[in-house]
Amino acid sequence: MGHADALLRLAALNTEYASCIDADRLEDWPSLFLPQCIYKITSADNHRRGYAGGLVYADSRAMLIDRIAALREANIYERQTYRHIIGMPALRPGDDITAETPFLVVRTMRDGPMDLFAAGVYLDRVREADGALRFAERIVVCDSSRIDTLLAIPL
Amino acid sequence: MGHADALLRLAALNTEYASCIDADRLEDWPSLFLPQCIYKITSADNHRRGYAGGLVYADSRAMLIDRIAALREANIYERQTYRHIIGMPALRPGDDITAETPFLVVRTMRDGPMDLFAAGVYLDRVREADGALRFAERIVVCDSSRIDTLLAIPL
Amino acid sequence: MGHADALLRLAALNTEYASCIDADRLEDWPSLFLPQCIYKITSADNHRRGYAGGLVYADSRAMLIDRIAALREANIYERQTYRHIIGMPALRPGDDITAETPFLVVRTMRDGPMDLFAAGVYLDRVREADGALRFAERIVVCDSSRIDTLLAIPL
Repeated sequence: MGHADALLRLAALNTEYASCIDADRLEDWPSLFLPQCIYKITSADNHRRGYAGGLVYADSRAMLIDRIAALREANIYERQTYRHIIGMPALRPGDDITAETPFLVVRTMRDGPMDLFAAGVYLDRVREADGALRFAERIVVCDSSRIDTLLAIPL
Repeated sequence: MGHADALLRLAALNTEYASCIDADRLEDWPSLFLPQCIYKITSADNHRRGYAGGLVYADSRAMLIDRIAALREANIYERQTYRHIIGMPALRPGDDITAETPFLVVRTMRDGPMDLFAAGVYLDRVREADGALRFAERIVVCDSSRIDTLLAIPL
Repeated sequence: MGHADALLRLAALNTEYASCIDADRLEDWPSLFLPQCIYKITSADNHRRGYAGGLVYADSRAMLIDRIAALREANIYERQTYRHIIGMPALRPGDDITAETPFLVVRTMRDGPMDLFAAGVYLDRVREADGALRFAERIVVCDSSRIDTLLAIPL
């Protein structure tokens, strides 16, 4: 897989990732991860200090599926929508593809107001499986340490 | 036209679209649409409910040209500028190319303050005409239902 | 260099540019410019009027290196982080590549709040040197005239 090809395929994976969340197709979101995977949301401060934990931590696709089911039950998604704007990845091919990709999330509440909800960088390890790129690891590093503690929807 | 090629050409069309609006080349904007076309601005709520109408609705390039002329006469553009940040398209080639593309618009008022003006997704049908990609249809679906009713400049 | 190739390489240069600033690798930032180069930050108003000056002006890589050294001494970077979201370039190849690229910068203060810090367009002249694309000129045109006069970190 050449560099341009890897770049465009990873950008397409990010677009699909954002669309699953932003268009309320949350059930499709876990399928973008490998069965064995890491998904973590943390802050830049904690990431820099090497803290292992995160605000959200999952180490399998099954945990991501459970998380979505819990969100549906809690009906939290009904009150807000997200809009991801994802930059072009900076990637370093290898056995796995590793990449850094900036992102921004705008939140719109049901009653109207919009706000900058999160900004940061995705640190990814991506692998080909059955002809598609999938996340082996996605660490969501948020610039702000003031992350909504009710953080409901994946970032 | 291969997938990578279609993706880059559509991204280029979006960049040109944004530049027409953001750099005050509004008169160039209608030329990005086919003579027979749909351009519509609506909210996610109305789109989900299948409401046909929109805050803005045009079904020909001629209507878009009229709209720009009216904007120029009203001098509304003088008071504000827009800045579009457009994500990578998710596209499904076919006879037409159909695509979903996230966008964000920041508005800057002449006296200085900036705000998040709109966020949402473009739902596009694009066709090749005379060697260039042009919009057969662009539905601008805004995440918020509280859209400025004075909505002056195209989104 | 074909059009798609130039586009992806310029997008990669922009990604690296943003990463140098946003990930606090400021010392790597000047190396993305040619030894003889122009780097300028101005407002859309001043740019339109043809004012030569800028809020920030440098005409060599050496000046950019000095600037970063001054920033480090002042410790300003410690109090805030930036996050660039950079759109796809609109480019016109030639002897040099010239391009227009929209950008958005979100600032996060150490104590937590995030704000839209800047939006605008990069006007670039880019040239190949030793196998890599480098900036011969980057004019940062900010939409707002109210630019933080303490403007510390490169945009």
